[in-house]
Amino acid sequence: MTATDPVQLTADLIRCPSVTPEEGGALSLLQTLLEGAGFVCTRVDRGGIANLFARWGDKGHAKSFGFNGHTDVVPVGDLAAWSADPFGAEIRDGILYGRGATDMKSGVAAFAAAAVDFVRDTPPDGALVLAITGDEEGDAVDGTVALLDWMETEGERMSVCLVGEPTCPSEMGEMIKIGRRGSMNAWFTVTGRQGHAAYPHRALNPMPAMARLMDRLASHPLDEGTAHFDASTLAVVTIDTGNPATNVIPAQTRGTVNIRFNDAHTGAGLSDWLTAEAAKLDAEFGTTTEVAIKISGESFLTPPGPLSDLVSGAVEAETGRRPELSTTGGTSDARFVKDHCPVVEFGLVGKTMHQIDESVPVEQIRQLKAIYTRILRDYFTV
Amino acid sequence: MTATDPVQLTADLIRCPSVTPEEGGALSLLQTLLEGAGFVCTRVDRGGIANLFARWGDKGHAKSFGFNGHTDVVPVGDLAAWSADPFGAEIRDGILYGRGATDMKSGVAAFAAAAVDFVRDTPPDGALVLAITGDEEGDAVDGTVALLDWMETEGERMSVCLVGEPTCPSEMGEMIKIGRRGSMNAWFTVTGRQGHAAYPHRALNPMPAMARLMDRLASHPLDEGTAHFDASTLAVVTIDTGNPATNVIPAQTRGTVNIRFNDAHTGAGLSDWLTAEAAKLDAEFGTTTEVAIKISGESFLTPPGPLSDLVSGAVEAETGRRPELSTTGGTSDARFVKDHCPVVEFGLVGKTMHQIDESVPVEQIRQLKAIYTRILRDYFTV
Repeated sequence: MTATDPVQLTADLIRCPSVTPEEGGALSLLQTLLEGAGFVCTRVDRGGIANLFARWGDKGHAKSFGFNGHTDVVPVGDLAAWSADPFGAEIRDGILYGRGATDMKSGVAAFAAAAVDFVRDTPPDGALVLAITGDEEGDAVDGTVALLDWMETEGERMSVCLVGEPTCPSEMGEMIKIGRRGSMNAWFTVTGRQGHAAYPHRALNPMPAMARLMDRLASHPLDEGTAHFDASTLAVVTIDTGNPATNVIPAQTRGTVNIRFNDAHTGAGLSDWLTAEAAKLDAEFGTTTEVAIKISGESFLTPPGPLSDLVSGAVEAETGRRPELSTTGGTSDARFVKDHCPVVEFGLVGKTMHQIDESVPVEQIRQLKAIYTRILRDYFTV
Repeated sequence: MTATDPVQLTADLIRCPSVTPEEGGALSLLQTLLEGAGFVCTRVDRGGIANLFARWGDKGHAKSFGFNGHTDVVPVGDLAAWSADPFGAEIRDGILYGRGATDMKSGVAAFAAAAVDFVRDTPPDGALVLAITGDEEGDAVDGTVALLDWMETEGERMSVCLVGEPTCPSEMGEMIKIGRRGSMNAWFTVTGRQGHAAYPHRALNPMPAMARLMDRLASHPLDEGTAHFDASTLAVVTIDTGNPATNVIPAQTRGTVNIRFNDAHTGAGLSDWLTAEAAKLDAEFGTTTEVAIKISGESFLTPPGPLSDLVSGAVEAETGRRPELSTTGGTSDARFVKDHCPVVEFGLVGKTMHQIDESVPVEQIRQLKAIYTRILRDYFTV
């Protein structure tokens, strides 16, 4: 039989308008393909979100290789600025254009095509699992989490998992992600007492307190990096007061910080620090500071070992590049998968993700399928 | 002839709905009264603003006593919250209610009534000038400034001037203003480079720079006060960024400070300081900071002397209180008059000015007329 073309499959997926939370036909298309290849498919829909679980081989097999990815995409943004229909999958000079071309319909297409051909050509002694969600770009509450919850209940498992997100900064094969920093937001509301700017002693201005707090937080080094992680960072992302009157001292001001933290920290530890800084501020200024904190994800690491060796080896064999094992970047669904089994991420070059004219060289999609195929072969051969 | 009732006159003025820039009939009413008493009146209207100049006696007389005040009022605000019609001038339990009851239709009524009765009962060897504007609460560009410009052109003069703004914090006779601090605003725009919060090293966050700047400005003591002035103050009144995304480092943020400064400073000197602080910040952070500055008024002082002695003496004789000579508070039109002649301010208790249910005890209006009358008598008797 002929090999499944991952470029054609990517194009077909791009033509499904699956902007979060719309399924857009993308998961149905994959389900048809996978069922045709002998995969048992289950739609694990939750909270209005469509998700697809597919397994080839025995349920709960001790040697189950998993792929995770998403078919939902971010909105197109300024449609007029696109040089191609974002849902048209136009190929021009060897470049495929469309929303999701890199993030990550090409990744899903590459692992689905690799999986389908692999089980047909060299049926392994083990299982292949594809856990594909329609909610990664949104709240991610009913996406991969829903799939993992369902798997737990049903006794489904992955022994290891590869997330197919784009991971390479500029050249194919440069980088594997073996962990991610944690991410959290803190919203500070500093309250004083309103008054006339001409009589500051009768008011209690929250602005100097907010400035002092943000200066302190921004200039406090969290750490200098750890064995596998860059230094943690804190970014003050906004301060807003909304006081239009120059002769009025405002009663309240709000500021937000985003922290990306490595394995030297926990969300709870950082929350304690932020809360203590707010209390210190109030003691100094007499203000009342409220802190609301949301931890989007803790930092995690799959230490270099068998899984990263497996993926690195396949990448190097296909691209000639020994990939860097990195923990940089934003969050991904690997933060959920890590509670289920060892997980690493590898995919193509992510430069144009979320942008106008998102695009991918078709050759890169073919190379990605070849890498995923080699990973499967090596995994089940060992 | 009977004495002119300043309470009735205040009530009549309150019934003129003269919210800036509307004349509302207030100046016409005064003009009729003053012309009937032998004053030469000229409407000095400019830029859509009505102003009234009135003189009794010889033009340019070396002994010309001036009164300055305004008939315009601020908007009523939440009408439903008033217990009386803001333009109804209701008297309840000896309290007169209405917009402008304290700021400052009562003051204008008191000096107009005093002037009218004084020139009739004891015609002085000199001149009385009333310079009354309809634009003090607004931009004040075509108000007292227009009157003074016109006077300069026409050879009209005041030897000394009393501004009838409310000056007493809580008890009648407590305070005379002999100067005012200057006021200026500075708008800072700090620009960096936008980026993803997960990759702060690729961005240049303007927020920590803004926080540092505002902390520095707010904690820098400008002075410790001077002979006749409180310490200068700086209030950070707002910081605004408007960045809704916690994963985005913003390109730009804006902050505003208001400075009230005494005679240890000039607007130009403070502007230099603010500009230097912005440059220092940019050198430290690599940001680009723009500063826009507007000086609303320089500080000024009419040093204690004959004019303040005259007013203090009259206040003490009528109230039993020796008033404090103060330079506290916001700006007033005295900041313009001071370039024309020595000026002090004295009026009644300003507690309810600009508020819902603005009101004044009618007895206070009568007492104010008596004080103004005594000032005129003492001025022309000496």
